[in-house]
Amino acid sequence: MTAYANRTAEQLRQEYETVTRAFEEAKGRHLKLDMSRGKPGKAQLDLVSDILTVLAKPEDCMDGSIDARNYGELSGLPSAKQLFAEILGCKPQEIFVGGNASLNLMYDIISKGMTHGLLHSPRPWSQEKTVKFLCPAPGYDRHFKVTESFGMELITIPMLETGPDMDAVEKAVQDPAVKGIWCVPKYSNPQGYIYSDETIDRLAALKPAAPDFTIMWDNAYCIHEFDGDFVPFRDILTVCREAGNPDMVYEFASTSKITLPGAGVAVFATSEANMAYMCKLLTVEVISYDKVNQLRHVRYLKDKAHTLALMKKHAAIMKPKFDAVADALEREIAPLGIGSWCRPKGGYFISYDAMPGTAKRALALCKEAGVVMTGAGATFPYGVDPDDSNIRIAPSLPPVEELEAAISVFCICVRMAALEKLLGK
Amino acid sequence: MTAYANRTAEQLRQEYETVTRAFEEAKGRHLKLDMSRGKPGKAQLDLVSDILTVLAKPEDCMDGSIDARNYGELSGLPSAKQLFAEILGCKPQEIFVGGNASLNLMYDIISKGMTHGLLHSPRPWSQEKTVKFLCPAPGYDRHFKVTESFGMELITIPMLETGPDMDAVEKAVQDPAVKGIWCVPKYSNPQGYIYSDETIDRLAALKPAAPDFTIMWDNAYCIHEFDGDFVPFRDILTVCREAGNPDMVYEFASTSKITLPGAGVAVFATSEANMAYMCKLLTVEVISYDKVNQLRHVRYLKDKAHTLALMKKHAAIMKPKFDAVADALEREIAPLGIGSWCRPKGGYFISYDAMPGTAKRALALCKEAGVVMTGAGATFPYGVDPDDSNIRIAPSLPPVEELEAAISVFCICVRMAALEKLLGK
Repeated sequence: MTAYANRTAEQLRQEYETVTRAFEEAKGRHLKLDMSRGKPGKAQLDLVSDILTVLAKPEDCMDGSIDARNYGELSGLPSAKQLFAEILGCKPQEIFVGGNASLNLMYDIISKGMTHGLLHSPRPWSQEKTVKFLCPAPGYDRHFKVTESFGMELITIPMLETGPDMDAVEKAVQDPAVKGIWCVPKYSNPQGYIYSDETIDRLAALKPAAPDFTIMWDNAYCIHEFDGDFVPFRDILTVCREAGNPDMVYEFASTSKITLPGAGVAVFATSEANMAYMCKLLTVEVISYDKVNQLRHVRYLKDKAHTLALMKKHAAIMKPKFDAVADALEREIAPLGIGSWCRPKGGYFISYDAMPGTAKRALALCKEAGVVMTGAGATFPYGVDPDDSNIRIAPSLPPVEELEAAISVFCICVRMAALEKLLGK
Repeated sequence: MTAYANRTAEQLRQEYETVTRAFEEAKGRHLKLDMSRGKPGKAQLDLVSDILTVLAKPEDCMDGSIDARNYGELSGLPSAKQLFAEILGCKPQEIFVGGNASLNLMYDIISKGMTHGLLHSPRPWSQEKTVKFLCPAPGYDRHFKVTESFGMELITIPMLETGPDMDAVEKAVQDPAVKGIWCVPKYSNPQGYIYSDETIDRLAALKPAAPDFTIMWDNAYCIHEFDGDFVPFRDILTVCREAGNPDMVYEFASTSKITLPGAGVAVFATSEANMAYMCKLLTVEVISYDKVNQLRHVRYLKDKAHTLALMKKHAAIMKPKFDAVADALEREIAPLGIGSWCRPKGGYFISYDAMPGTAKRALALCKEAGVVMTGAGATFPYGVDPDDSNIRIAPSLPPVEELEAAISVFCICVRMAALEKLLGK
């Protein structure tokens, strides 16, 4: 196969005819395939079924002297704090165990920034003329949406293979209106990058103009390797503390992709000063989150080593799916020189950069052929990709055979969109 | 026994000596008793243990074609909406099924009023100069605290046996800064009153100056009779709709006192227009609440009739506790004419009105003798009871024998506080 860039106009026209026929044929199959969201597949859900019955009798519901069934323990069960502290590498008293959704905790903290301010806020953000938030992009659409929904101005920060472009971040935080940054430090969504040590050090050592500047550290994929062994990561709370910024970070994690996506347990971790401040606000909002589910997780996951062993079983299900996608891209697209991507070793996504100006069209074609993908642009603030190039592929939900069908359609569609562009159609 | 009002100073002094001795004797027993919060007791938690294992296998987790374990279904499982719609008497599409805490849903709606405004808000409440909220008192401290925490001005509305004083409410809502009212319509917290039909009709027919005035209708004790049969109640959504105010109410309920207090399911019910508006805001905050727990509840509670049968079992545990408290008050206090209370047939509290100016002192004495009660004043906005008289008694947590010990100490303490007052000590 010759790269499209090296083909004559006639050759491209012939290729377009071939691809169009393939597209029509795919359409004729009336597929209904979904690579849109990072949802675990059924095999992963079935893997953890024992968690459903790990608490069966009244006496199972005791965590020491605490009855997990009754009201109380705002910040979570002690044993659950212990478990997550071990996984994240922080202290139990720095952990708040919430409900089933880390997004909910993130939203809540941003919302409290708006209505009450954070620990070092001169005033609630709703009383600021402008509030800006840094959004490394490509990034996670739901993060960006949270801050957008409160009317904040989203500032795009380029994502490098080492993490957010720190030159850009260091410059941006000189503006006192900039109140924070969204980060997915390990297996970033969607590119699967791991922040470098230098990036982490520079983030922790920031000297922002805003005294309440906050790193929203979404460690969603902290133990989510599907290729190779667990990759250790640094405790961001310690790094920030040692850099003289102990209260500058809230870290988030959940078991949504460890146990059950809709029925897991989410946590945030932060300095004890932040914790005391936030608990004073949270006690007005809720008496306690679901401690029975917290205890289910403690009994089922046991400790970090046991949890990592479970992640190996998830990995065995995930790896063939990522391989199917990456292999197809390497086979079908690489030789044509019309797209780029990287092959992550963890997380839930593959980030595909299509020929600039063709992402939207490629995804419209996918939709026409029955393959649902995350909307083009979703990985950028306000849902607008200035290059119309980035596409997030989520291979986790469909079984491998469906995934192979879906990625094959995807390859046809990105080729077709590229050809249309090259041929000026 | 002679009422204190009819005793001579000398008789009162003698009584004071007797009571003081009884108090010292009680202190000597080093009690540790808790009548402070409406927590169900262990027998009630044990009653519902089957809910822990009602979902045991992957196939149990399917609700029709929906896998309760995975992400999705923001507004809740269809079967859970059906169950709560039947219990509350509204339509399934008017139900949003959330996490484990109705307080959390209430807070969230008030918070969104602040940051985004409600459906008919001219602007977010955070941009109003003043926001006021009506607080029928005695009432629920956590309600008042939510609105207080956002800096709202709390307006006390007297509670009558028929519900909030509607003359006062109708007058208050002429102020456009008044954005809502807290209501516990059935077995009100703490008095156990049921709003009369006239009160409900007048509430639904309000013509508030604020276009976004909202009734926060916390139907916490909707099926929580402990004495006698289920008392039917009107669907507030229908009453408001028929009065021409379809979007004026959010209703709340939960299974915290039906299944497990810390691991139940909470819902709000509201008009479809409000629902559409709120879901657009909620989708930024959470992908879905814990649907596995929702499905557990559906399978365990089945339907309204089956749920009411369960409530009869709770009632059998609760009634002896309320009887122990009310009987002791009638025996020890009624003849002395130093307090008043009523004997509710449902809910979780008995409201005791002590001799004015003695509630704080009585509770300080209780604490000294090892009996923890809800703080004096808690039932009023800002925690300040202008008469220093109202005390909320929560008999649900302790076993009957402990409760008898606790209420006996309580009676000694209210007598002692009254005598100190009468003797000018």
